[in-house]
Amino acid sequence: MDPSKVKIPPMKDLTVDNITENVHTINSLCEDERMKYILERLVTHLHDFARETRLSTDEWMTGLRFLTEVGQICTEVRQEFILLSDVLGLSILVDSIDHPKPPGSTEGTVLGPFHTHDAEEMPAGESMSHDPKGEPLLVVCTLKDMEGRPIDDVKIDIWETDSTGHYDVQYAGRDEPDGRCIMRSDKSGVFWFKAITPVPYPIPHDGPVGRLLTKLHRHPYRPSHMHFMFQKEGYDHLVTALYLRNDPYETSDAVFGVKDSLTVDIGKAGPEIAKKYNVPEGHALLTYDFVLVSDAETFELRAKNSKTALDKLGRKVKIVNGLPVPDLD
Amino acid sequence: MDPSKVKIPPMKDLTVDNITENVHTINSLCEDERMKYILERLVTHLHDFARETRLSTDEWMTGLRFLTEVGQICTEVRQEFILLSDVLGLSILVDSIDHPKPPGSTEGTVLGPFHTHDAEEMPAGESMSHDPKGEPLLVVCTLKDMEGRPIDDVKIDIWETDSTGHYDVQYAGRDEPDGRCIMRSDKSGVFWFKAITPVPYPIPHDGPVGRLLTKLHRHPYRPSHMHFMFQKEGYDHLVTALYLRNDPYETSDAVFGVKDSLTVDIGKAGPEIAKKYNVPEGHALLTYDFVLVSDAETFELRAKNSKTALDKLGRKVKIVNGLPVPDLD
Repeated sequence: MDPSKVKIPPMKDLTVDNITENVHTINSLCEDERMKYILERLVTHLHDFARETRLSTDEWMTGLRFLTEVGQICTEVRQEFILLSDVLGLSILVDSIDHPKPPGSTEGTVLGPFHTHDAEEMPAGESMSHDPKGEPLLVVCTLKDMEGRPIDDVKIDIWETDSTGHYDVQYAGRDEPDGRCIMRSDKSGVFWFKAITPVPYPIPHDGPVGRLLTKLHRHPYRPSHMHFMFQKEGYDHLVTALYLRNDPYETSDAVFGVKDSLTVDIGKAGPEIAKKYNVPEGHALLTYDFVLVSDAETFELRAKNSKTALDKLGRKVKIVNGLPVPDLD
Repeated sequence: MDPSKVKIPPMKDLTVDNITENVHTINSLCEDERMKYILERLVTHLHDFARETRLSTDEWMTGLRFLTEVGQICTEVRQEFILLSDVLGLSILVDSIDHPKPPGSTEGTVLGPFHTHDAEEMPAGESMSHDPKGEPLLVVCTLKDMEGRPIDDVKIDIWETDSTGHYDVQYAGRDEPDGRCIMRSDKSGVFWFKAITPVPYPIPHDGPVGRLLTKLHRHPYRPSHMHFMFQKEGYDHLVTALYLRNDPYETSDAVFGVKDSLTVDIGKAGPEIAKKYNVPEGHALLTYDFVLVSDAETFELRAKNSKTALDKLGRKVKIVNGLPVPDLD
């Protein structure tokens, strides 16, 4: 395009008070309504942040240098911006907005940076951990829909650290997946496997995000947990985790993942369970009943929540492709 | 520190509605009051942004990837985060907050990414541009304080592009500064030099920020301008620029730098000026009277503006080291 031909609406003389309006004006030619709305809110909050803190030039420069470092430490196996989003509580918030859960369904939580796409499918009853130092754990779960009907053939990604608190991908010499697997629920919606009892671990804290935590007098630890991800056509993608009750970091998770409904006790296998799953009596046992929500119900709930939240803010919106944009009609 | 000994106040079960409060809780141990206040506002606005846009997981990931790219394209001579801040209007806003100008003083504007620290001091009347294709321009300026008294011996950085719209640092083979110099005001507060008439040019737009502008249907151009930076002990550091009136991009500057009070006409040297400065009659002429503000007056005005702005928001603050923090006493 010939830039001098772009008919940008003329801006006014710029001041602290009208700069925001002027940026909205110059962005107003964007044809993607959703993007325009996102930019409008982004610019408003960015400017209000500066106005409310009376941000100094030095502080602004410190912030830009910090963000530059966050970007520069990222590699194919390290995503420091996700980590930053995690420790600021943004990741869990976005998950809660995008995957709303009606009462009775299993809540979601943060994905974290350690999910991979190379885990292998494992038959029921096998062990996904090969760490001899971990405490052996039997995990027996069910998977149902909101009406209590079993859901079979759901693809379930499961991953956890080894007994030292490290995921397989954190080892330089990793040549195959460990501490992770893919399972399928059976006709009764059951899936069961062997693992090790999860342990707490620190998120990577040798970079800019770790330095930020130190300045805030925060620790980088996550309480003991095991990750689960459920996928089946027709059901809302569920990313969640189970947390161990009474973990020292249960109420101070560095990435805000813990939810009451996802916190569990490690039990002991009684005679019946021990016999059925072929483990010694008293073997550590984790059980949980997961409940998935249909895509349709999630779509409807998400749109309803959006309307309610934005009505409360006095913004008239319409839902396009499941997401709100200003309703100017 | 032993992280399990950190006495972080326990957080509640996390929801869309209480996550912000929980992040404030976990950040509340920060001992730097100013940093705590900045984080509190940052987290509030970040979360409100997500809540008001109902940000989806895909959009969140797109945003994080964009920021990662912005960080990764940065080098010693390219600062894409400053550019991003510029095109979102944040840079000009922060400058306006940090360097408030009382009526009668010269307004500031964006520094931009092309100032260097290797320009050489030049005697009055010399030419700072060696581009034979530029239109020769005589620049005659005065420098006074708020009481109209001349200020001598101010260090003045001046920089502009060549006639093709490129700064010297944008050429790979640059071995010495060109199109930039340092001058000192004389006893009468005057400084004068030769340059070329500024031309419009695009900001670097081959990276993620350029792609953002394209999506927003914005052009990357800045209207013709010449940069000035003034430094003298006791006076507020002034970063400013003069813009040419009727430039095709005067009302659509990609980085929001233009202000009415900084917009000038290029005149023609009359017989007197021509004789005094040894140029032909009719030679292109730029004149401007700059007015600097004292450090003390700026400090006071900044604190007063902060109080007023935050009072309006209903926040009780006190000013510490010139910057506001919540007043909890």
